[in-house]
Amino acid sequence: MFKANVEVTLRASILDPQGKAVQHALHNLGFASVDKVRIGKHIEMWVDTDDEREARAIAKQACIKLLANPVMEDYHLEIEAVETSMADGSAVKKP
Amino acid sequence: MFKANVEVTLRASILDPQGKAVQHALHNLGFASVDKVRIGKHIEMWVDTDDEREARAIAKQACIKLLANPVMEDYHLEIEAVETSMADGSAVKKP
Repeated sequence: MFKANVEVTLRASILDPQGKAVQHALHNLGFASVDKVRIGKHIEMWVDTDDEREARAIAKQACIKLLANPVMEDYHLEIEAVETSMADGSAVKKP
Repeated sequence: MFKANVEVTLRASILDPQGKAVQHALHNLGFASVDKVRIGKHIEMWVDTDDEREARAIAKQACIKLLANPVMEDYHLEIEAVETSMADGSAVKKP
């Protein structure tokens, strides 16, 4: 079992109104030194395979086909080995 | 200038309907080995200070006061040094 951590971010040239709104909210709360805020998605994906390369390929295809919009977004992918999912659905990192 | 990378994730005990929907969509696209998907927020925040400890403290306070809902969410924070923002608003990582 592998866990893929995917970060999907808006490209630098794309306006991020949600980030701007959060930045204004932070300024209003007194965080004057916060210069810029950009908001993206953090996706955790558990892939049931024993092969790290296969897990990476599956996660990459999932990003390309569904998770990221290639016109406006970039994605960054990291894979880590985890033990098989437990009954509560969480997964434990291998020591 | 420091950049804070924040990941805000739903706690394991909280249902994630958005993640479930993405998991179903991936299954429908043929990704049968994707076992579970959880979706959170990835927030990039540029803090205008020369002191890494101060940048971390500011980012942490921003998480506590605005970005994360402590009842349902956890946050993970990483700080990296970046050069001062360029004209287009992007920031370059120090070598």
